[in-house]
Amino acid sequence: MANPSLLILAGDGIGPEVMTEVKKVIAWMGDKRGITFDVSEDLVGGCAYDKHGVPLHDDTMAKAQEVDAVLLGAVGGPKYDNLDFSVKPERGLLRLRKEMDLFSNLRPAQCFDALADFSSLKKDVVAGLDIMIVRELTSGVYFGEPRGIFTEGNERVGINTQRYTESEIARVARSAFELAKRRNNKVCSMEKANVMESGILWREVVQKVHDEEYPEVELSHMYADNGAMQLVRNPKQFDVIVTDNLFGDLLSDAAAMLTGSLGMLPSASLGAPMANGRPKALYEPVHGSAPDIAGQGKANPIACVLSFAMALRYSFDLGEEATRLEKAVEQVLADGVRTADLMGPEGGVPVSTSAMGDAIVAAL
Amino acid sequence: MANPSLLILAGDGIGPEVMTEVKKVIAWMGDKRGITFDVSEDLVGGCAYDKHGVPLHDDTMAKAQEVDAVLLGAVGGPKYDNLDFSVKPERGLLRLRKEMDLFSNLRPAQCFDALADFSSLKKDVVAGLDIMIVRELTSGVYFGEPRGIFTEGNERVGINTQRYTESEIARVARSAFELAKRRNNKVCSMEKANVMESGILWREVVQKVHDEEYPEVELSHMYADNGAMQLVRNPKQFDVIVTDNLFGDLLSDAAAMLTGSLGMLPSASLGAPMANGRPKALYEPVHGSAPDIAGQGKANPIACVLSFAMALRYSFDLGEEATRLEKAVEQVLADGVRTADLMGPEGGVPVSTSAMGDAIVAAL
Ligand SMILES: CC(C)[C@H](C(=O)O)[C@@H](O)C(=O)O
Ligand SMILES: CC(C)[C@H](C(=O)O)[C@@H](O)C(=O)O
Repeated sequence: MANPSLLILAGDGIGPEVMTEVKKVIAWMGDKRGITFDVSEDLVGGCAYDKHGVPLHDDTMAKAQEVDAVLLGAVGGPKYDNLDFSVKPERGLLRLRKEMDLFSNLRPAQCFDALADFSSLKKDVVAGLDIMIVRELTSGVYFGEPRGIFTEGNERVGINTQRYTESEIARVARSAFELAKRRNNKVCSMEKANVMESGILWREVVQKVHDEEYPEVELSHMYADNGAMQLVRNPKQFDVIVTDNLFGDLLSDAAAMLTGSLGMLPSASLGAPMANGRPKALYEPVHGSAPDIAGQGKANPIACVLSFAMALRYSFDLGEEATRLEKAVEQVLADGVRTADLMGPEGGVPVSTSAMGDAIVAAL
Repeated sequence: MANPSLLILAGDGIGPEVMTEVKKVIAWMGDKRGITFDVSEDLVGGCAYDKHGVPLHDDTMAKAQEVDAVLLGAVGGPKYDNLDFSVKPERGLLRLRKEMDLFSNLRPAQCFDALADFSSLKKDVVAGLDIMIVRELTSGVYFGEPRGIFTEGNERVGINTQRYTESEIARVARSAFELAKRRNNKVCSMEKANVMESGILWREVVQKVHDEEYPEVELSHMYADNGAMQLVRNPKQFDVIVTDNLFGDLLSDAAAMLTGSLGMLPSASLGAPMANGRPKALYEPVHGSAPDIAGQGKANPIACVLSFAMALRYSFDLGEEATRLEKAVEQVLADGVRTADLMGPEGGVPVSTSAMGDAIVAAL
């Protein structure tokens, strides 16, 4: 059988730095565990724009469609802030999500014991937190038509369209219920059915998928504004949260920040199974490109390393290897190894991006 | 000159209970300060539906247009959950906002010293917090057309439209800049200009209003997902936040929850000046109708009392009376008077809704 294939799109800002550390882990897996990936690399975001005038070249898009999994670093930076909307770095990422049809975005918000003090929330509110936000990723207001800035009478109007079909809602709901079954069997669906008809359809379809296919999973519904509140008040009440693209964007970021360590959080974006049975998949850290610290060896590579762990689990059926990698990360943290973003008020000397990567490989 | 007029719409759930306490304050103002309001009362929400089959009767709407200010309790309850979308309790509130054209929704998130321990956030993160969220309230995805659930091919699709004109953005921006001038002179505008064209127009217009009319106010822009994070990470970095209807719904609720005492937070919804120079205005607590505790004398009337204080300040130019009322509330809290929602882990005996109202009047 051919080696599993991996396309690395390191992107902009700290993307390349954190990806370098992941490559160390990939090399270790080949050397020590005999698990070899066919790795190719390409450009996405601002660096792709610099070279090709577009944030994602068609050839790169084609490659992404062919590989078993894509690993992405981060995109964007102030240099690109004034580019036209259509060629902004983010459009590269959004094109990947849309054309690979990665409808299910898994965003764990997990609080690491060694880091519970970093949260702005009280320790007892977040210690042991382990929730999974499943965000719809290929539809909704991100992609709905009509969209644009139009002239009406003597002024302009900005328009976007929130749009969900029954099947779009049903497939992401299934993905959430499947996950819940392997976790604590609880799903909370969030929308604004009190204000938006798309929310009414959302609620109805999620309920139907539940009743017909997953009656054994506990399902509740919550308005998204209350969801934002409840995440702040008592996040541990949740297991799996399923929500649309835009609510998911805000709620998963708020949830990520609860843990106090954004530099730690991975994500997976999954689509339908390919011919080989693997889902189309893209893995990326939740953090952004952090242009302010790029190139200084200050970035924390753990989120990107844990994104690779998610790839092992969800794309390559290597759950044990994923767990091994996650345990190595926990070990390193327990040993007190800290990048700059993980320094507490007590201070201490932070290690570099590269030293953190080395420590993880050593712990493996 | 005629007395200022006030329409009270107590609504559902705990609405009537908390409003009873506000009426004590209103009576006190007439007796002791010679400030007399012409008060009328009417129905909104579920109770209006029960009587008229609609959540807001046309006559009530007409009255609301005529008075100097509307004071609203809360709407909604499980009894009405399965009503058709068009007659749900919320539609009454949304109709008031829309037809009175209350485009600027002021939601203070303030942490009361005596209550800083109630927050799920660490005390130093929230103590002294005092931010103002200005939410656009009459446009965006709440009201944009087309909207509804349609059939396309062999499935249904839920559609809502996000829609903002330049003038809609400009007027709420002005309202935020005006407020900032009387506060700490800082406005942060939030949207998703990286994903939504309506966000691009939003950012551009806010910047233009700033440059042309309020160059002395400090203005920054932030993506709304980052905004959700930053509110959790370090809310004190903000002074005034201005954002659209839907983002404002989520962000203001998250911000409110940071303070740990939702039962304390008022809001004002303001429109254009009427012939008498007063803005069209509706005041209401941020909390909901809390059907689970309705009718038990457990509700905290403070949010509703402070909403009346906002009415004194923004509708009736009685800033000093407003401050007096706010100080009375602080006094009562400092004295340790607590409704059930304000009981800490140490316990103690909570006072009833009515005893809290009496204590506030006594402190006046
Ligand atoms: C970069 C941006 C387009 C993106 C989004 O809005 O989805 C990001 O915020 C995310 O959550 O992955
Ligand atoms: C009750 C509901 C319609 C309303 C809204 O979504 O605006 C509420 O959540 C609010 O924030 O005032």
